[in-house]
Amino acid sequence: PKISTTFRIERDTFGELQVPSDKYYGAQTVRSTLNFKIGGVTERMPIQVIKAFGILKKAAAEVNKDYGLDPKIAEAIVKAADEVIAGKLDDHFPLVVWQTGSGTQTNMNVNEVISNRAIEILGGKLGSKDPVHPNDHVNKSQSSNDTFPTAMHIAAATEVHNVLLPGLQKLHNALEAKAKEFKDIIKIGRTHTQDAVPLSLGQEFSGYVQQVKYSIERVKSSMPRIYELAAGGTAVGTGLNTRIGFAEKVAARVAQLTGLPFVTAANKFEALAAHDALVELSGSMNTVACSLMKIANDIRFLGSGPRSGLGELILPENEPGSSIMPGKVNPTQCEAITMVAAQVMGNHVAVTVGGSNGHFELNVFKPMIIKNVLNSARLLGDASVSFTENCVVGIEANTDRINKLMSESLMLVTALNPHIGYDKAAKIAKTAHKEGSTLKETAIKLGYLTSEQFDQWVRPQDMLGPK
Amino acid sequence: PKISTTFRIERDTFGELQVPSDKYYGAQTVRSTLNFKIGGVTERMPIQVIKAFGILKKAAAEVNKDYGLDPKIAEAIVKAADEVIAGKLDDHFPLVVWQTGSGTQTNMNVNEVISNRAIEILGGKLGSKDPVHPNDHVNKSQSSNDTFPTAMHIAAATEVHNVLLPGLQKLHNALEAKAKEFKDIIKIGRTHTQDAVPLSLGQEFSGYVQQVKYSIERVKSSMPRIYELAAGGTAVGTGLNTRIGFAEKVAARVAQLTGLPFVTAANKFEALAAHDALVELSGSMNTVACSLMKIANDIRFLGSGPRSGLGELILPENEPGSSIMPGKVNPTQCEAITMVAAQVMGNHVAVTVGGSNGHFELNVFKPMIIKNVLNSARLLGDASVSFTENCVVGIEANTDRINKLMSESLMLVTALNPHIGYDKAAKIAKTAHKEGSTLKETAIKLGYLTSEQFDQWVRPQDMLGPK
Amino acid sequence: PKISTTFRIERDTFGELQVPSDKYYGAQTVRSTLNFKIGGVTERMPIQVIKAFGILKKAAAEVNKDYGLDPKIAEAIVKAADEVIAGKLDDHFPLVVWQTGSGTQTNMNVNEVISNRAIEILGGKLGSKDPVHPNDHVNKSQSSNDTFPTAMHIAAATEVHNVLLPGLQKLHNALEAKAKEFKDIIKIGRTHTQDAVPLSLGQEFSGYVQQVKYSIERVKSSMPRIYELAAGGTAVGTGLNTRIGFAEKVAARVAQLTGLPFVTAANKFEALAAHDALVELSGSMNTVACSLMKIANDIRFLGSGPRSGLGELILPENEPGSSIMPGKVNPTQCEAITMVAAQVMGNHVAVTVGGSNGHFELNVFKPMIIKNVLNSARLLGDASVSFTENCVVGIEANTDRINKLMSESLMLVTALNPHIGYDKAAKIAKTAHKEGSTLKETAIKLGYLTSEQFDQWVRPQDMLGPK
Amino acid sequence: PKISTTFRIERDTFGELQVPSDKYYGAQTVRSTLNFKIGGVTERMPIQVIKAFGILKKAAAEVNKDYGLDPKIAEAIVKAADEVIAGKLDDHFPLVVWQTGSGTQTNMNVNEVISNRAIEILGGKLGSKDPVHPNDHVNKSQSSNDTFPTAMHIAAATEVHNVLLPGLQKLHNALEAKAKEFKDIIKIGRTHTQDAVPLSLGQEFSGYVQQVKYSIERVKSSMPRIYELAAGGTAVGTGLNTRIGFAEKVAARVAQLTGLPFVTAANKFEALAAHDALVELSGSMNTVACSLMKIANDIRFLGSGPRSGLGELILPENEPGSSIMPGKVNPTQCEAITMVAAQVMGNHVAVTVGGSNGHFELNVFKPMIIKNVLNSARLLGDASVSFTENCVVGIEANTDRINKLMSESLMLVTALNPHIGYDKAAKIAKTAHKEGSTLKETAIKLGYLTSEQFDQWVRPQDMLGPK
Repeated sequence: PKISTTFRIERDTFGELQVPSDKYYGAQTVRSTLNFKIGGVTERMPIQVIKAFGILKKAAAEVNKDYGLDPKIAEAIVKAADEVIAGKLDDHFPLVVWQTGSGTQTNMNVNEVISNRAIEILGGKLGSKDPVHPNDHVNKSQSSNDTFPTAMHIAAATEVHNVLLPGLQKLHNALEAKAKEFKDIIKIGRTHTQDAVPLSLGQEFSGYVQQVKYSIERVKSSMPRIYELAAGGTAVGTGLNTRIGFAEKVAARVAQLTGLPFVTAANKFEALAAHDALVELSGSMNTVACSLMKIANDIRFLGSGPRSGLGELILPENEPGSSIMPGKVNPTQCEAITMVAAQVMGNHVAVTVGGSNGHFELNVFKPMIIKNVLNSARLLGDASVSFTENCVVGIEANTDRINKLMSESLMLVTALNPHIGYDKAAKIAKTAHKEGSTLKETAIKLGYLTSEQFDQWVRPQDMLGPK
Repeated sequence: PKISTTFRIERDTFGELQVPSDKYYGAQTVRSTLNFKIGGVTERMPIQVIKAFGILKKAAAEVNKDYGLDPKIAEAIVKAADEVIAGKLDDHFPLVVWQTGSGTQTNMNVNEVISNRAIEILGGKLGSKDPVHPNDHVNKSQSSNDTFPTAMHIAAATEVHNVLLPGLQKLHNALEAKAKEFKDIIKIGRTHTQDAVPLSLGQEFSGYVQQVKYSIERVKSSMPRIYELAAGGTAVGTGLNTRIGFAEKVAARVAQLTGLPFVTAANKFEALAAHDALVELSGSMNTVACSLMKIANDIRFLGSGPRSGLGELILPENEPGSSIMPGKVNPTQCEAITMVAAQVMGNHVAVTVGGSNGHFELNVFKPMIIKNVLNSARLLGDASVSFTENCVVGIEANTDRINKLMSESLMLVTALNPHIGYDKAAKIAKTAHKEGSTLKETAIKLGYLTSEQFDQWVRPQDMLGPK
Repeated sequence: PKISTTFRIERDTFGELQVPSDKYYGAQTVRSTLNFKIGGVTERMPIQVIKAFGILKKAAAEVNKDYGLDPKIAEAIVKAADEVIAGKLDDHFPLVVWQTGSGTQTNMNVNEVISNRAIEILGGKLGSKDPVHPNDHVNKSQSSNDTFPTAMHIAAATEVHNVLLPGLQKLHNALEAKAKEFKDIIKIGRTHTQDAVPLSLGQEFSGYVQQVKYSIERVKSSMPRIYELAAGGTAVGTGLNTRIGFAEKVAARVAQLTGLPFVTAANKFEALAAHDALVELSGSMNTVACSLMKIANDIRFLGSGPRSGLGELILPENEPGSSIMPGKVNPTQCEAITMVAAQVMGNHVAVTVGGSNGHFELNVFKPMIIKNVLNSARLLGDASVSFTENCVVGIEANTDRINKLMSESLMLVTALNPHIGYDKAAKIAKTAHKEGSTLKETAIKLGYLTSEQFDQWVRPQDMLGPK
Repeated sequence: PKISTTFRIERDTFGELQVPSDKYYGAQTVRSTLNFKIGGVTERMPIQVIKAFGILKKAAAEVNKDYGLDPKIAEAIVKAADEVIAGKLDDHFPLVVWQTGSGTQTNMNVNEVISNRAIEILGGKLGSKDPVHPNDHVNKSQSSNDTFPTAMHIAAATEVHNVLLPGLQKLHNALEAKAKEFKDIIKIGRTHTQDAVPLSLGQEFSGYVQQVKYSIERVKSSMPRIYELAAGGTAVGTGLNTRIGFAEKVAARVAQLTGLPFVTAANKFEALAAHDALVELSGSMNTVACSLMKIANDIRFLGSGPRSGLGELILPENEPGSSIMPGKVNPTQCEAITMVAAQVMGNHVAVTVGGSNGHFELNVFKPMIIKNVLNSARLLGDASVSFTENCVVGIEANTDRINKLMSESLMLVTALNPHIGYDKAAKIAKTAHKEGSTLKETAIKLGYLTSEQFDQWVRPQDMLGPK
């Protein structure tokens, strides 16, 4: 990135620091970049958190105006916050996740950027803290301790609604369409990876549909506690230095701005000291990851081949699969989504460890927790879309292969149980297996039934449900 | 345990085997003990799964009777199943968790025990499979593939209702009583483990109350999908060899027998091939573990001392703490419950790995999954009761210590902000810190206010909420 | 278990308690059973820890004798400890893992049992603490804080040497024998689950051999830090109330008794306050679990069928696979070992969480940590033996199937690259795939080469290594 | 980033695609960006992998030259690869981690960039594949299947050596210096978070020193298997299309270029199909994370206060701690490093899941695995440096506080055991605790000893080691 070459002087309670002239942030932000050189640019605070802060600061300014904040100041804050929300000021948030565990430095980064931008809007001088003070105005009635968890919940809920749920829904719909398309294709079932009794390919896919349907329900069932906002709890949850009603009004305003049903947290002490709600959401995503891992594994095995695999599905060919093996095509979308699933499981453990290690009035694993939650939501959502568009919608059934495997299957013998008994049926299956013959020829050869009886009794289409 | 010294011969499709004369199980059970010498007696299939099987076999026999099973046989099965449920036959289930991943061998163990016991009830000969056949009668309209997951859900739901939820409720109530008891005790807050503005001890405990309240909600919100039973899906989910209506009737009967709202699974393919519902429940318990870890950590730190710790809480003394240090008392209940929390987090990862690795029509990590889910439910429930009875109910506030720390706190200076401004307030705090003096004497010495003003403005009891 | 019906009175510093007359343990043990009703009998302290304590108490008594302990007392302690080691007193250790996190109560349980048994040996009265006192004599120069970690290391090292390493070695040897047996069988390779260029079945198995070889190395490389014993650190690591040289002599004596190269810990403060060495060992076992999961997955997929799977391997048939599908055989050993692998991964997270949460001079997750480490070692070792004996040694190559798949493979076209170029080779493969024809007939039909050239150039046996 | 506005046409075996004119990459790279829209720019393949590829491609070109590759081509490849290594072409690697699980697309990205840049160097036309072909020349004797794991190992080893080990060493040295500095400061010990017998602050820190010393050893002990390179295995491990000796020479050349002891992998099948070596390294880093979590937790608790905490350590003040509480200073470096520790534990689970899920000849979780391993190494290394520089080196002992707590401690009574017996000692401690008096006055009052005896017997400085 371009290096700033001119600086202005800003100060915080620790003293003066040089700040790049072209940046809106101030001394506390610079101090954090000096003290936390951990991980570099890819480890920055997720931009969704910054935008959530924009929403919160806007809402707070509007509510503060109701409680007496100078309207000129409030409106300038709102304008600046709108620019943060719109992503116009992304370059002004250089801090990494690996900072103070309360996210205080990011809260101050936001306060500094908004106050300086608001000062600029009002014709003031950057760094003067006049007429818009980062603490006294932008952070009014707030503390990092309640704003950061509020931004965490806004960011998580927004990402879930904008990315995760639409991605899962898209995948659900595509799988459901396939389940319908495949409903009359009868195929061999497999349990323990071994041949089993038949089912329809549509039935097999209906299991995937159900998994994704429940994935959506699981995520949704975690949301009520995510919609609770800590704002109004200030430093330790008491709400010291706020006004009665502030908490409720801010939550209502955030709900309005986002279109999501945010409310003020039932207990602010819990909302600052623990992040159980995010651990819970992460747990839901962990379950989603298990579902997607299972589905993608099935699809790649069912599509394995072209000659030496199971070969029941034909997967879309999206790119050359090998620089050394001409014509090779790989189930790369399955690979991407299973890698995502593994990542989500790992993220979940990080969130769990962080969530369990809070002390007293404040959990200080906040930035790490939200980074992982947002990462899981984004990756699952994006990967679901990619998997759907580049794989699921293009899946075709290899009906020749499916029919061949199904008709050769020894497990069809199960249909004979009611007619000739389990023991004779087993004899037929074992003999056919040993001799490499078909069930029908073996059954006739053993004298247990006639050709007509076999055709009448062993009918895969009659084996797909209860009688 | 007593070693059996006489044997009878039983057979399965692989041949004959010696079975201890005093045991109801048969050849397939013995074969499993020979093939799976993994982990020993502590690794046996949890007895809750066996009892759940008892319930299922009873329900199935009754429904099968409606569909034409000889009432004499059905009733003998019911009687034998009742003995399984009552725990009278526990010694007849020797198999370990580390067997086939479908739990087939445990299903056969149950079939063998119930059929032999039913044969005995009807005056027949053990091992004769007559008049009650383990497969044809006890397992009628069933497959291991649907019975084992059904037993998993019955066992999990029962353990949640009998152990986990009551344990959490008990803890909740005890914490709530303490929150009320402590509501007027004002104390120093701590964020980042550092001194912060005050709150009441009741407020601090109210955060714990909320965590446990939500713990209960989280577990409950996972239950709808646990109440879905796979029974009726048979081998691959199609319901082959069952009758229309069987699935619904069995679920209804199980609901009746257990008093829990079980229903037949919406999609049997999903119910056999995946265990997302148990991964989800495990995820809820993982969140509960995080909550309990946090609460117990707080309590032991707040109770640390007696001379060199925080010392705000006095914890019950339950046992001698040290053989070398006379008079030492330790927060052992906190230690037990935090160890349980760590175990639950580990169990959850095991469940997650198993849940993500199903293939095709059957997940074959079933015994491992249910073992861990049941272990988590039991440990969390038991530990909550132990923690409540032996620690929480006996916690006392060390009010002298609490008052001393609170009144010495530099963070009370926050209350001066509106009166003398942030900068002067900071000056007072920093000077007092440096000189080891009180806020009041420092403030007066610096000439910022009078003794009367200090007493009027710095009132912890006014710092506990918004204005 | 039999319920005791008569009692004697014993006392600890908290008062008197009734102790079952037929038990050697005393008041502190009874108190723990009253205060920690968590999880029941399957959650007892692993017996390996008790035996390790037996070894330690014996070694300590002998060293204490050198430092002046009455030889009569020392010898009685040694005799009683020998009975603990031999497993004769297993019923006298009822405590669960979920007790105090230092394991103090188990240390006292051991002290009580050994002192009472020694008293009995010397003709004294149980519970009299005379002439052998549990604290003053059995625990002499010791504290729970150093004895429990010492027992943890002795138990872990012993289980690794007695169960884990022999199990892995057995598996290694069996896989190596198979790799040799299969060295000339050429088969299709599979990457991305898709057909790829050929390799020999022996080469494929050689990868498994290497994984298990390195598994053994990984475990061994963790052992040096496990061989360090905390004994001699007493209460906080200083060694207060021990004698100079005690630590070294005890370690030497334990080494002698076990035949393992134990030494005194380099730093006793680390040895009490952290359990990094066990986290490390658990990490090694976690890697072993990954290796075994991979190998077992491969084997079950390669053995899938009998008609509709890959079918390259024929796995031993050990038991009936299905009560509903006659003749079905399942890869149950693969299932047991993959379940074990998942459990070990979960155990590892529990150990990690416990290991990371120590505070100040003592980690108090000790019983939970050692339970999980021992469980992982035992399960991996046992499962390796079971998998070897019941699966690996009986694996046969299905050479007809292997040859058929290999000769049909389109990926053999890779051998033509140097002769006709990548583009023409790709054309052949894609055309053959589209038309379902063989490479040879397609190549000839396209006019790229002659039948003789094809036979000369496309020789799988020449594709197994560099030139 | 700047959007390209002009394009050239490139083609792969799937057809033509528009490529930005100012980029060196080609059609396959563009195709991947279209097919894998997952996670955005922060999810790009770590640049360390790209640089490792640069090293590998350079080494391969040089070895290929020895085996007959046109020197002009080889040298152009080397030059282009040098630019990749130097980071001059970073903008030409846009692919994300969530692509094919073999990393094939990144291998092709590298091949395309190097071939086009080499073509440019030789005066050719971008996209012409002449005179330097991405597959035939840059990828000569290579396959994605062996190059990607090779790059993984090179990247991991380099990051460990450049970032992780130096960071840990720096931390070790700083802690060791503190241990020496504090060696004569006697303080209260704490077990179970409760007061215990004394130790020196230097002894306490020596435990941390040992943990970090062993952290370094643990990482190093994982490296031998990381130094094994897969290069030469090509598609499935056989080495098809390479020359005898190629593998060894490439490894030797990579060793030369990096200064690290790389060798060719003992078994190429294992090296492609599994990533046990990286799971192992991740396990070592997981143990390091536990160590750092423990140390940082201790330091923040020992430094808690300033008035209401333990207050034994004075931590450096690096930034304002609160916008609402004047003068508040927080242990932010401890927070950053404990968050890093939690992340590393999570990353480890992701790596474990990926490592356990390989199939047949190729593990296809490669990009995810290496992303997490590199992230863990970087975060641990960076955080260790930050923690050292901004916290550890500036830690001061609050000796007044330490002395006060130590002299008030009831646990000093332990020193009286040998003189007046355990029971009287316990009586003194319990009485003093109850009455809030000192040990000395209580002991005298109880008539157990004289003031002189107390002073002579209770000497903390004599309690720091064995006698």
